[in-house]
Amino acid sequence: MKPSSVVALAGGVGAARFLDGLTRVIEPERIFIIGNTADDAEIHGLHISPDLDTVTYTLAGLSNPQHGWGIRGDSFRCLEALGRLGADTWFQLGDLDLATHLYRTERLRQGASLAEATSEITAALKVRSRLVPMSNERVRTRICTPSGELEFQTYFVKRRARDRVTAIHFEGASEAAPAPGLLDAIAQAEAIILCPSNPFISIGPILAIPGIRTALQRKRDKVAAISPIVGGRALKGPAAKMMKSMQLRSSAAEVAKLYLDFTNIFVLDELDRKQAAQVEAFGMRPVVTNTIMRGLRERKSLARVVARELGIKLETRA
Amino acid sequence: MKPSSVVALAGGVGAARFLDGLTRVIEPERIFIIGNTADDAEIHGLHISPDLDTVTYTLAGLSNPQHGWGIRGDSFRCLEALGRLGADTWFQLGDLDLATHLYRTERLRQGASLAEATSEITAALKVRSRLVPMSNERVRTRICTPSGELEFQTYFVKRRARDRVTAIHFEGASEAAPAPGLLDAIAQAEAIILCPSNPFISIGPILAIPGIRTALQRKRDKVAAISPIVGGRALKGPAAKMMKSMQLRSSAAEVAKLYLDFTNIFVLDELDRKQAAQVEAFGMRPVVTNTIMRGLRERKSLARVVARELGIKLETRA
Repeated sequence: MKPSSVVALAGGVGAARFLDGLTRVIEPERIFIIGNTADDAEIHGLHISPDLDTVTYTLAGLSNPQHGWGIRGDSFRCLEALGRLGADTWFQLGDLDLATHLYRTERLRQGASLAEATSEITAALKVRSRLVPMSNERVRTRICTPSGELEFQTYFVKRRARDRVTAIHFEGASEAAPAPGLLDAIAQAEAIILCPSNPFISIGPILAIPGIRTALQRKRDKVAAISPIVGGRALKGPAAKMMKSMQLRSSAAEVAKLYLDFTNIFVLDELDRKQAAQVEAFGMRPVVTNTIMRGLRERKSLARVVARELGIKLETRA
Repeated sequence: MKPSSVVALAGGVGAARFLDGLTRVIEPERIFIIGNTADDAEIHGLHISPDLDTVTYTLAGLSNPQHGWGIRGDSFRCLEALGRLGADTWFQLGDLDLATHLYRTERLRQGASLAEATSEITAALKVRSRLVPMSNERVRTRICTPSGELEFQTYFVKRRARDRVTAIHFEGASEAAPAPGLLDAIAQAEAIILCPSNPFISIGPILAIPGIRTALQRKRDKVAAISPIVGGRALKGPAAKMMKSMQLRSSAAEVAKLYLDFTNIFVLDELDRKQAAQVEAFGMRPVVTNTIMRGLRERKSLARVVARELGIKLETRA
């Protein structure tokens, strides 16, 4: 097998949208995606991997264009029936989506690894890129708030990210091993992209797995990161709010600073052009472009800019 | 709590239809139903209890009138999606029905007993009778056929009950204990009814749990059984075929013979009136009536006949 030549670190919706563009400007088979699994949760006894699924559904052309997560045209009849039985139903699980969780949970119980289950699901849904969880082991984001420590989905979905975040930690991360093949993929990559994902809860857990950050540092000249913060706000999700509650400025440059030890190119939005000098002062090469992906055209255009800056050969038809 | 005064031994569809009638002629709260769980299966990692669910859905007014099993108006979107992921989908699981299995499976994993999970489900669905699994422990019907031993659902659903049955056994039955309260309910019952269910695979497993048959023998004068065989054929399911392949005549009298040690009254259909003498020769009191339950009227009418023969006080409105 020819090694994948572009590695992407991915969270959920923002990453999935960018990757949708990237798979249209370079051959999808060349892309090796490392997915965050610290958002995973056990709900109704099922193993839910929200970020892996968001990437999978998006690349399979199945995603719900409104939310970015879930499956287009899904229904919620099982969830409603669970509610009638008295179960908690704050976590939205569609009838079609449930099949993925049932399949994954059963495979895990049969002894398959999360990477194996993910590979089977992506293959069945005809995703041409390789999607690999950051680790086969259990890592869970815990959010510290003034009302106590919360599981990530409780903080994010049930309590709608309204709590002030005082600290974040990744339970299990320091003992977890990167998924098989992951460090090799980084070592052999011709380019590495940090998708526009939350630096704390999407990229953060991936970097917390022993060995990954060091592997990226060794490839620093081939690494580009895309800011998920535009004009001081997060494109999606609670990144900006988290930065503020942790006494950080919510700015693209602040994100750049978190990555400076292993990132060469930092992509920031036209709106943040003034921060380019700051990024440069961190020893990174700033690239200013439009990063807001309203539609397919913008997704492809951003992917093309990033690919060119990294010297990745584009598909001729792109 | 006032003890339930009528105990019913129940399989699936035939039993559920009879119980639907019975709960309309006597107060549902007086009925204690012992459900067969030897048909239970683990499918997609979920604990499925087909007979408990058929009784529950029917008494909750939710059952699918065509099949008798499943939920009226259910959809199969999750199952279709599971099929796209490559999972086996021969066992029909509707989106609404799935909620019951998810709920039950999670409660069992949390340490609840099957009786507790069943009680929660029936309470949530406002079933007024008490439904108790024959045992909290795992008992599984195994069907021996010329092509080998099969799990019950594989024989029944996947292979459509087409194999010749050479023997049946109930794995785990001899080590299983009756569910809590079950033997007391029998001991205190004012009447006991064997619903018109398959004698081998629905009533058989219940009788195979140590202690139950003996408890019934002690109450012999209060026990009535309704034949599931009418005119030599099973009203529903493979009973007649099983009898033939086990070298038994498929007749109501043959069923009566299986129960003679603990049954006083045997209810057989008008079509089988000629077998009444034979039933009498077994030392049982034959009751001939219409046992074919085409609609609600027939269900109630059969329930009324059985209740009267057993001396059960009917509700005045019945």
